[in-house]
Amino acid sequence: MPHLKNDLFLRACKKEKIERTPVWIMRQAGRYLPEYRAVREKADFLTMCKTPELAAEVTIQPIDIIGTDAAIIFSDILVIPEAMGMHLDMIEGKGPVFEKPIRSKEDADELKVIDPVKDLKYVLDAVSLTKKELNGRVPLIGFSGSPWTLLTYMVEGKGSKSFSVIKKMIYANPKLAHSLLDKIADAVSEYLSAKIEAGADAVQIFDTWGGILSQSDFHEFSLPYIEKIIANIKRKDEPVIVFAKGVHYRLGKLSKCGADVIGLDWTMDLNKVRTRIGDRVALQGNLDPTVLYASKEKIKDEVEKVLAAYGKGSGHIFNLGHGILPDIKPENAKALVDYVKELSKKYH
Amino acid sequence: MPHLKNDLFLRACKKEKIERTPVWIMRQAGRYLPEYRAVREKADFLTMCKTPELAAEVTIQPIDIIGTDAAIIFSDILVIPEAMGMHLDMIEGKGPVFEKPIRSKEDADELKVIDPVKDLKYVLDAVSLTKKELNGRVPLIGFSGSPWTLLTYMVEGKGSKSFSVIKKMIYANPKLAHSLLDKIADAVSEYLSAKIEAGADAVQIFDTWGGILSQSDFHEFSLPYIEKIIANIKRKDEPVIVFAKGVHYRLGKLSKCGADVIGLDWTMDLNKVRTRIGDRVALQGNLDPTVLYASKEKIKDEVEKVLAAYGKGSGHIFNLGHGILPDIKPENAKALVDYVKELSKKYH
Repeated sequence: MPHLKNDLFLRACKKEKIERTPVWIMRQAGRYLPEYRAVREKADFLTMCKTPELAAEVTIQPIDIIGTDAAIIFSDILVIPEAMGMHLDMIEGKGPVFEKPIRSKEDADELKVIDPVKDLKYVLDAVSLTKKELNGRVPLIGFSGSPWTLLTYMVEGKGSKSFSVIKKMIYANPKLAHSLLDKIADAVSEYLSAKIEAGADAVQIFDTWGGILSQSDFHEFSLPYIEKIIANIKRKDEPVIVFAKGVHYRLGKLSKCGADVIGLDWTMDLNKVRTRIGDRVALQGNLDPTVLYASKEKIKDEVEKVLAAYGKGSGHIFNLGHGILPDIKPENAKALVDYVKELSKKYH
Repeated sequence: MPHLKNDLFLRACKKEKIERTPVWIMRQAGRYLPEYRAVREKADFLTMCKTPELAAEVTIQPIDIIGTDAAIIFSDILVIPEAMGMHLDMIEGKGPVFEKPIRSKEDADELKVIDPVKDLKYVLDAVSLTKKELNGRVPLIGFSGSPWTLLTYMVEGKGSKSFSVIKKMIYANPKLAHSLLDKIADAVSEYLSAKIEAGADAVQIFDTWGGILSQSDFHEFSLPYIEKIIANIKRKDEPVIVFAKGVHYRLGKLSKCGADVIGLDWTMDLNKVRTRIGDRVALQGNLDPTVLYASKEKIKDEVEKVLAAYGKGSGHIFNLGHGILPDIKPENAKALVDYVKELSKKYH
């Protein structure tokens, strides 16, 4: 592996001394970039995920175009349920749909135990190829959904507002839910280990739907499986980031789950969270993604506010508090990255 | 006005001594009740809102059927923008749609200043009629959306996931947003005052979309207008409840907005919130609405947990942490109400 020329992101994850705050953007390889849309015109979303050359190409685009300090492999969290045997459709304007969601023990029993090296070889190939093509410019992040978030999709079958189906399952049949979560946690552990083996320098676990749970349900159905994964990932010193959207409560518990970094959404107070858990973990976030609709002056002000909220010293990775929106101007994303690079120096 | 036979709800709002915890359910006059659906078959949603006899009928149904300690007038928060001149469609399975949303100063200038006594007479008539037909059995609650939540609908024109359009407005044209929020706050103040005049015993302000804002934006675009309304409502001792979904932060500030009661969503820790702000305000909530999908035993356990989380003494109004879902069994809603009545006695 080529030596990393820019390892600011990795050093910030470990709270080592750095010269400025590193920055990357959730969903940075995406539709807001015309260069991404040009690739997307040639292939549908899942084909892009499954073609290492295309995945590598769009993964690297934001490094060239907006200059982020880390790349995140282009993929989707639902490749795991698909590899377990669920047929996945990506429907334009509607999102992912499983035509046959998991509703019973029989459905659950049909799920395969996956071997990522065989069943998700295309992701690992994309990681290796991207790593090679990045040639040490910046670190590469691999990712997965949390077991709770994956199970939510697998049971609901599609997006939901009330999450009625998964909630019915956890209340009516908690045993089935736990056995599925456990099975998924094993798959995710193997998958993230294989991604690290293939060259990922760090991994992020997205618990997108952790925030729809009450505090006691989060503690029962989400957190233990995140902890299990982190305990089981085979890694040397590759950092693990956990991003649990909307989980305002349980940040104390979350900071003890074994992760090196906790990602914060834009409604959280970075300053207060640092005071509370910043001695244990590094923090990632948390600019409101819609601020990128604003003028450059406003973006600059808001970048300064986020940097000031974290304050002096290492342990902050700048990011949005949620994925970048598809109708953001690339020049605004570039301005954000430039401002972080310029304005963060005084905090180090 | 007939003397109230059951004023537990009003006494709890004022933290006066009571014999047991009162309970009502957000969206209790709704689709989960077959009796509601029978009325709804005869008239569309807006016609029901605009026909005092029908609105009164469905408002009173849950008092008879599930036995809640308060009624909430059947209506919709969007009757205000409609009265201001915006054409509103309620589209089955899609929700409310404004065909011509507010996008510019010109659009904003076309909005009428409303006189609720004339322009929303049908709501006031529904309140008077319901009050008469309730005949003092339980108090009647009137409600409104917060200015921020109403403006979000008026600008987006329909439901949204990313709230791009309203966010663009507050960043690109904060002056326009503030002038609209101020105009809406005036309309809401007049409207809630008129509802109280017509017989409402309490009013609730729903800030459904407060939680999509960062902390500083909530403080700039939502909270001041809630404060303005509460300062301007003409009332004797009718309590004001504020329910700001997802606003975990700012509970301290929110508790000083002039409201008598703060409503909590199901992800909040009732016990911790009471410790923090329970000396200033009463608290309403906060059972996860999806618990009503569970067995009666589970519902009982969860009711007990919420009661125990608040603990001993007055100042708690039992409710769900969000509206009841349309596919809940009425017998489960009834069980919830019965359990609260039975299990709460020991806390008083």
